[in-house]
Amino acid sequence: MKIDRLVGERFKERPSDAVVDSHALMLRGGYMKYVTNGVFSQYAPLKRISKKIEDIIRKEMDAIDGQEVLFPVVMPASLWEESGRYMSVGKELMRFTDRNGSGLVLGMTHEEAAVQLVREYGQSYTKYPFMIYQIQTKFRDEARPRAGLIRVREFTMKDAYSFHTSQEDLEKYYMECYKAYQKIFARAGVPEVITVKSDSGMMGGSVSHEYMLLTPIGEDSIAICTECDYRANMEAADNIVINESKGELEELKKVHTPDQKTIEEVSAFLGKSQEDTCKAVVYQKNMTDEYVIVFLRGDFEVNETKLTNLLGEAVHPGEVTPDSGIAAGFIGPMGLDSSLTVIFDSSLKGAENLICGANEADYHYTGFNIERDLGKVEYNDVAKITEGGICPVCGKKTITVKRGIEVGNIFQLGTKYSKAMNMTYYDSEGNAHYPIMGCYGIGVGRLAASVCEARHDDYGPIWPITIAPWEVHICCVRSDDEEAHGFADALYKELENKGVEVMYDDRNIRAGAMFSDADLLGIPIRVIVSPRNLKDGIVEINSRDKTIQMKVPKETALREIIDLIAEMKKEINDIADSI
Amino acid sequence: MKIDRLVGERFKERPSDAVVDSHALMLRGGYMKYVTNGVFSQYAPLKRISKKIEDIIRKEMDAIDGQEVLFPVVMPASLWEESGRYMSVGKELMRFTDRNGSGLVLGMTHEEAAVQLVREYGQSYTKYPFMIYQIQTKFRDEARPRAGLIRVREFTMKDAYSFHTSQEDLEKYYMECYKAYQKIFARAGVPEVITVKSDSGMMGGSVSHEYMLLTPIGEDSIAICTECDYRANMEAADNIVINESKGELEELKKVHTPDQKTIEEVSAFLGKSQEDTCKAVVYQKNMTDEYVIVFLRGDFEVNETKLTNLLGEAVHPGEVTPDSGIAAGFIGPMGLDSSLTVIFDSSLKGAENLICGANEADYHYTGFNIERDLGKVEYNDVAKITEGGICPVCGKKTITVKRGIEVGNIFQLGTKYSKAMNMTYYDSEGNAHYPIMGCYGIGVGRLAASVCEARHDDYGPIWPITIAPWEVHICCVRSDDEEAHGFADALYKELENKGVEVMYDDRNIRAGAMFSDADLLGIPIRVIVSPRNLKDGIVEINSRDKTIQMKVPKETALREIIDLIAEMKKEINDIADSI
Repeated sequence: MKIDRLVGERFKERPSDAVVDSHALMLRGGYMKYVTNGVFSQYAPLKRISKKIEDIIRKEMDAIDGQEVLFPVVMPASLWEESGRYMSVGKELMRFTDRNGSGLVLGMTHEEAAVQLVREYGQSYTKYPFMIYQIQTKFRDEARPRAGLIRVREFTMKDAYSFHTSQEDLEKYYMECYKAYQKIFARAGVPEVITVKSDSGMMGGSVSHEYMLLTPIGEDSIAICTECDYRANMEAADNIVINESKGELEELKKVHTPDQKTIEEVSAFLGKSQEDTCKAVVYQKNMTDEYVIVFLRGDFEVNETKLTNLLGEAVHPGEVTPDSGIAAGFIGPMGLDSSLTVIFDSSLKGAENLICGANEADYHYTGFNIERDLGKVEYNDVAKITEGGICPVCGKKTITVKRGIEVGNIFQLGTKYSKAMNMTYYDSEGNAHYPIMGCYGIGVGRLAASVCEARHDDYGPIWPITIAPWEVHICCVRSDDEEAHGFADALYKELENKGVEVMYDDRNIRAGAMFSDADLLGIPIRVIVSPRNLKDGIVEINSRDKTIQMKVPKETALREIIDLIAEMKKEINDIADSI
Repeated sequence: MKIDRLVGERFKERPSDAVVDSHALMLRGGYMKYVTNGVFSQYAPLKRISKKIEDIIRKEMDAIDGQEVLFPVVMPASLWEESGRYMSVGKELMRFTDRNGSGLVLGMTHEEAAVQLVREYGQSYTKYPFMIYQIQTKFRDEARPRAGLIRVREFTMKDAYSFHTSQEDLEKYYMECYKAYQKIFARAGVPEVITVKSDSGMMGGSVSHEYMLLTPIGEDSIAICTECDYRANMEAADNIVINESKGELEELKKVHTPDQKTIEEVSAFLGKSQEDTCKAVVYQKNMTDEYVIVFLRGDFEVNETKLTNLLGEAVHPGEVTPDSGIAAGFIGPMGLDSSLTVIFDSSLKGAENLICGANEADYHYTGFNIERDLGKVEYNDVAKITEGGICPVCGKKTITVKRGIEVGNIFQLGTKYSKAMNMTYYDSEGNAHYPIMGCYGIGVGRLAASVCEARHDDYGPIWPITIAPWEVHICCVRSDDEEAHGFADALYKELENKGVEVMYDDRNIRAGAMFSDADLLGIPIRVIVSPRNLKDGIVEINSRDKTIQMKVPKETALREIIDLIAEMKKEINDIADSI
């Protein structure tokens, strides 16, 4: 294709609302256009990238015996009522009614539709296991779409659902899918994507993994052990704390701490470290506004996902009103209103001689010892793991925390949906059971943006050849020169005849502007044809990432380009094939 | 793929709610499953057919310089307010609001999104012409979804939008697209699809064509001339009526016609034919309920689309209330309340000595002659063309009326959207203009269902090889026979290695059940491997449409099958290539 026919604009200025680079570059490069909050249209370059990613996914899903199907975007509310998610999912689920007043929803995932599709088919154990997947548009009414294609409301997603007759079979298939996902990311040019143990959230089920591309702009925090292979989303990472005994237990003493409300203030005031405090954090349950008080060691923070999972319901940071009976800033476990929900984080287990609030304005206790002063309490892990924390696997203090973008996830769902929707199969003895399910998702647009995030420089994306919108970009510098134009034209046609995807720039513009556009399109191989080069009998072939810069005789240029394409593809696919 | 792994059920009973064959067969064959009114999920066979149709469309769109893009399914209401369609389109447009109360719509067509995407890009005349297209899920809240995939609420559609700087350029491109569409239908195996002149309806614009597959179950009526190549949708077909002079004009006479309210009654009562009457049909405007009286020759019917286009607003059959001042059953042009909107159909032009209502209960006039008794009136064509009517092109009485399914349409939109949405470009002299647009649609699922409708027998679909879910269906009859099973296994693997798409049935079931399933899957080439055949050293190769039935030496079976695939494809594509 000739660049002057490519619909879409490329421009120099970074859009003021683009916080992350992939967002800025995909707007600047004419990849997409904002339509409304969290909704974009795609121009040809992004559509081509998406299609290549989809084909990579398709191939790997087919290789593990997946069957591509298609579920509807619009589903009846009744289907989501069957699973219970019509009520349990928040405002992300877009609900509306049709001309006859029937409730509808826009699909954000398709567990319900998957069960509905195979409920009759899967009545005999002989049909199992099987996996169905689709690549389809989805909509989630996110509260805060951000970062371009990283978090949108409308997106294309591959979602797969597997059905099994035993947990062992699910686990076996889960591992196949685990590997297939690694291959997908490798083929998309980002083999560095890591898997992390994750929280299953609203999907239900127990074991689940996320595929993370580490980048400072990621929304997720990931705990990684630098010594062993432990990796977990912060939301799922066990926070191990070992409190050493201090020898002698101090006496419990009420002390005057006027206006010392925060842990920083009170520990400084009393000349102690934050580790020696028992901090209180107040939450309220979303449904009832009932207070929940979390006590944890002063140097830790609450992880709200862990807390939500423990409570079985969502919470928000509490607002302490004067008539609540809670002494904000001075809350402590001793003498607290016994009707309140109280949670002790495991970071307090074995901690001695603590400072804690006295539930009275301007007073704290020192020498607080939980077991001695309160008796036996139950500890739960609701705190965030921290940099330098203890690895739950190897036990060393080797945890580091990184940020990442979640580019895929896999879940062992169990029987949550089959049970709720009454899908059963008969085993060989005629007994009915609920099939055990797994589900597996990849966001196509988010993956494209993530690759851009991981592979770009100041001037544009550096697309891996396996997902690049085109493979070769010919720049004919000085297209007013007859020989140069003629040579470039011929090369363009020969490459297209060989099935190579070529972007051809023969505009009569200055080389700088031409190269800026080429940088923004990020095509892996750039061929520069110019009168000066041709006078020397050569053509320049550069890679977009600048690792390859060669001058080849013009007679062998075609061959060299085709070889380079094959080489680049091989390099990427060899990694995938070795997984 | 092995048939016992294919997700989906095949069954014998025709579902009671399936009125048309394609609907029944696509349910019975495990192609799709009902989810809610007008919404289906697709199993692998239908998804594969859809994908092949999409690839055929893509190829032809790319061949006429189309660029594949992607517009959102969910669009902001504000975008549709710009074009005016947010108000003008009826309940088919699904409207709802997001968590912030912002209005959204589900895309049913994407003219607005197309203009929004290229409004900035297309500011200079040098960028024109260009065409962008997408293949995307759409939703229309149809009042009466019916006939399986023929009329649904959710569907996959290819919609294309072209932009031009002159009407001539649009017309030139329109003809390219016209041919590309013919090629698409030919490649999908239905070259008999015809083009008909159509009404542009809510899309705006003037010239438009529909691509019709003629079938008795079609929703559209098409006027076709048996002598020339005139073809038009009934909604757009000019109704030509020539009234010959009767010589002498009769005297206008009021006659008593007690209880003779219908045209049939009054013409019989007065011993005249229906041709000799001036019939009145009462409508009301949808917005105001204002009456519209249409007079036309008694042997014709009103075409509501023509009437709507003439009035510029929608109407519904009128309800004549006692206080309306209208004498239901006795309405006539003479002495009618002059405040009423009255339309004379062209079928009355030159008609003499008519019977008409006298606007008084139980009275009609005879000898009514419009020009003499009323003076000059304006005639408009608002009647349906009829079987045996006059062809507007060749003038012969050779019109026949057939039914058809609309499988595609192309429109010359003009500047309706560019003007409403203020998209302008500058010409070489710096003057601003509105670009002229064309739009071009094909419903993927409807095309699949239409092909099934046109290509099936009592036992199942007969898919053209270019869109068939698989190319070859191997039936291993008596898979308990080691030699047969071994041979079939090997043939299956060899074919797959050659890139052939194979469905393989090696279930140990009776041949009849096996063939029923094969009939329902409608795969064009069937290979029967059986102990009896192998004893004779042969393999049976049959075509699904039964035109080919051969027994070939087992040694050459592979070659024969591959040749047959190539032949079948060539036969179909040769037709397309000759267009």
